[in-house]
Amino acid sequence: MQQYFIKGRAPRGVFQISDKDTAKHMFSVMRLQADEQIVLVFDDGIKRLARVVDSQHQSVEIIEELADNVELPVSVTIACGFPKGDKLEFLAQKTTELGVSQFWAFPADWSVVKWDEKKVAKKIEKLQKIVLGAAEQSKRNRVPQVSLFANQSDFLATFDQFDCVLIAYEESAKAGERATLIEVLTHFTGGEKILFIFGPEGGLSPDEIERFEIKGGRQVGLGPRIMRAETAPLYALTSVSVLTELMRA
Amino acid sequence: MQQYFIKGRAPRGVFQISDKDTAKHMFSVMRLQADEQIVLVFDDGIKRLARVVDSQHQSVEIIEELADNVELPVSVTIACGFPKGDKLEFLAQKTTELGVSQFWAFPADWSVVKWDEKKVAKKIEKLQKIVLGAAEQSKRNRVPQVSLFANQSDFLATFDQFDCVLIAYEESAKAGERATLIEVLTHFTGGEKILFIFGPEGGLSPDEIERFEIKGGRQVGLGPRIMRAETAPLYALTSVSVLTELMRA
Repeated sequence: MQQYFIKGRAPRGVFQISDKDTAKHMFSVMRLQADEQIVLVFDDGIKRLARVVDSQHQSVEIIEELADNVELPVSVTIACGFPKGDKLEFLAQKTTELGVSQFWAFPADWSVVKWDEKKVAKKIEKLQKIVLGAAEQSKRNRVPQVSLFANQSDFLATFDQFDCVLIAYEESAKAGERATLIEVLTHFTGGEKILFIFGPEGGLSPDEIERFEIKGGRQVGLGPRIMRAETAPLYALTSVSVLTELMRA
Repeated sequence: MQQYFIKGRAPRGVFQISDKDTAKHMFSVMRLQADEQIVLVFDDGIKRLARVVDSQHQSVEIIEELADNVELPVSVTIACGFPKGDKLEFLAQKTTELGVSQFWAFPADWSVVKWDEKKVAKKIEKLQKIVLGAAEQSKRNRVPQVSLFANQSDFLATFDQFDCVLIAYEESAKAGERATLIEVLTHFTGGEKILFIFGPEGGLSPDEIERFEIKGGRQVGLGPRIMRAETAPLYALTSVSVLTELMRA
């Protein structure tokens, strides 16, 4: 069944779909007719079964709340050094499918691309659309939040918000570091906030790692193989799912 | 350090790089000079440190064997229903980075694309190149084997080779099936052969699932979120890495 995110609180009774893109998808693309059912998700993250009342007036009404919750038991923020090309678009889509809470990127010391404010604003808009589409398709209860940081100090200032800051560092993997991730994740009881930091194609600089460590970051290995910049975040999110969802089922 | 796979057994003494593509990459692209070092991997999967003897004659010699082994402790075959577009190319690269042993695809009941023999042969050649490049970049000890099956009966006939055949089925995930993967993987002691089967974009057909189950396949859920056809195999491989590499470090 088709799922849509709707901003605000769930209204009582019959109401109109006011967001233009959502209304267009429901009534022009999917051509939903009276009595056809959909799932709507409001700001509270609860899925609600709803039915179309009148397709011409683009009106619907809620039938009942659904118990289905597919969010990870811990909140994972993925922060990537600005990568080249359309890797951020790829990562926004894939990390949403894998349960990310916040998808962030920052200018890393060795990021090749330089984005001005205008470019950053455009990029955020594009990423938000991708994340919304992916969240609807993978039946998430929440739409991941997207941020791109203009500089590293703004990014560093966020570290205090997290219970745990993990730095995915290729050299740790090469040195055989494999215990930290398991140790951290198996001690979580639910509700914790993790920040995972990833470098761009060229990796993180030693200076950068030091700055992250001073602010409480811990280096972590993600298995023995060398992964590309756009693959490591998928490994990280999946490991959280395996250890906090599958292992505790 | 640059790594290259070389067919055959490791020779003693000075020898020439005979494969044209490899020689071109070493001496024209990377412009390696005498005494510069590289890692060579022959059919035995052992990494060997080598040095360039003479760049004009494209000759090298082995210095020593390296202990580095980054292969998964169990052998994982990923088999995907023929997907649309260039998803197979994407999957060949990403599953290689994540440690796949064999990368296979088969015509699923709901595969939209139909490939004749000529197209299949071309596709295999392309995938082999991608897999080789990815294996060198992720510093694998083995180049994954690539097969595309012309029909499902040839594919079904391979099931006997495996210790375990797992069918990633969306409906199992929706029904909350989360225990099978953990149960299977935590019982493995090393060296086992697993086949993971994935559907194309439209999923696997009920008939197909039944055929796979008759031959010993077991349905398995990969967490509660709905993943795209090209994301689920990455989740599966990462879960094998987490449970057999990180958990047992």
